[in-house]
Amino acid sequence: MQAAAQLFAEKGFHAVGMTELGESLKLGRGTLYHYIQSKEALLFDISREYISGLIARGNQLVRVDPDPVSRIRALGNDLIATIASHQYELKVCFREVRSLTGQRQTEVLSLHSTYERIWRNVIKDGERKEAFRAFDSVELKGLLGMYFYSYLWMDPTGNIGPAGIADRFNGLALRMLQR
Amino acid sequence: MQAAAQLFAEKGFHAVGMTELGESLKLGRGTLYHYIQSKEALLFDISREYISGLIARGNQLVRVDPDPVSRIRALGNDLIATIASHQYELKVCFREVRSLTGQRQTEVLSLHSTYERIWRNVIKDGERKEAFRAFDSVELKGLLGMYFYSYLWMDPTGNIGPAGIADRFNGLALRMLQR
Repeated sequence: MQAAAQLFAEKGFHAVGMTELGESLKLGRGTLYHYIQSKEALLFDISREYISGLIARGNQLVRVDPDPVSRIRALGNDLIATIASHQYELKVCFREVRSLTGQRQTEVLSLHSTYERIWRNVIKDGERKEAFRAFDSVELKGLLGMYFYSYLWMDPTGNIGPAGIADRFNGLALRMLQR
Repeated sequence: MQAAAQLFAEKGFHAVGMTELGESLKLGRGTLYHYIQSKEALLFDISREYISGLIARGNQLVRVDPDPVSRIRALGNDLIATIASHQYELKVCFREVRSLTGQRQTEVLSLHSTYERIWRNVIKDGERKEAFRAFDSVELKGLLGMYFYSYLWMDPTGNIGPAGIADRFNGLALRMLQR
């Protein structure tokens, strides 16, 4: 899946055929079709794997930590670490979600809404606990946009690194949220 | 250019041929090639038109208004209004910048750096005037990411509208920047 994501990110989903995919993965036609139903099924798997992980870990983080501020930091750290380790997957997902048909496109979009809901619930809980200002759905879009947009420019091997970026962004997120 | 941007956004740059482009623009082959050097030249024009506008208006806004806070509001308003009126162009530019070759790709990326520099200078000036905290380049990436990411989810005909989104985002940007 990683190799396929890189290939799709570099050449475009529609430009890569099953033959090229097989060659690049060093799999013969029979083996390739044994593992992969179709190119679209592969795109679907690439598009939902990282967001499913974000949801699973996000729910877990919230379960073990009741403090609104440290929940935001934990969610932000996990989000930036995931973007850093899945840049090809995010590029492919954001570019090619329209290449998914019917139920598959609906499911990927629904996973993104589910993830957004984790943040929303954390912020609303922080509002109840009087740590955060009143929840605003457009402000949440802005806050998440700040994190997600980093897939376009982040260099995980750069000077600052994912942990430094997460630290700065978490600070900004808390400036947005706190009373 | 608008019609071509919409076609590229919906079908993908590589999937649209000159014939389909001509049919959708209701231009014959001769007329089409009279106006358009090549498909890549068209992609180049689509990718730089909105960012050139942002730079020209951004420089003008800064020239006429010395106040750091109202400069941020003016830049934010113009950015959201431009994204709202150029969603297809932004989709095409962000998805297909790798389809531009050589000098053209360099120039589009360089225009984005030039635009980022306008914000950087406004923030550094605000720092000198003791209105803003110390400038941080990663924080600027986060701030601009908040605005730019809206091309993916903004519905310019929705309840809140571009002006309402800009107003909320400008408020968040100032929370990020102010001491």
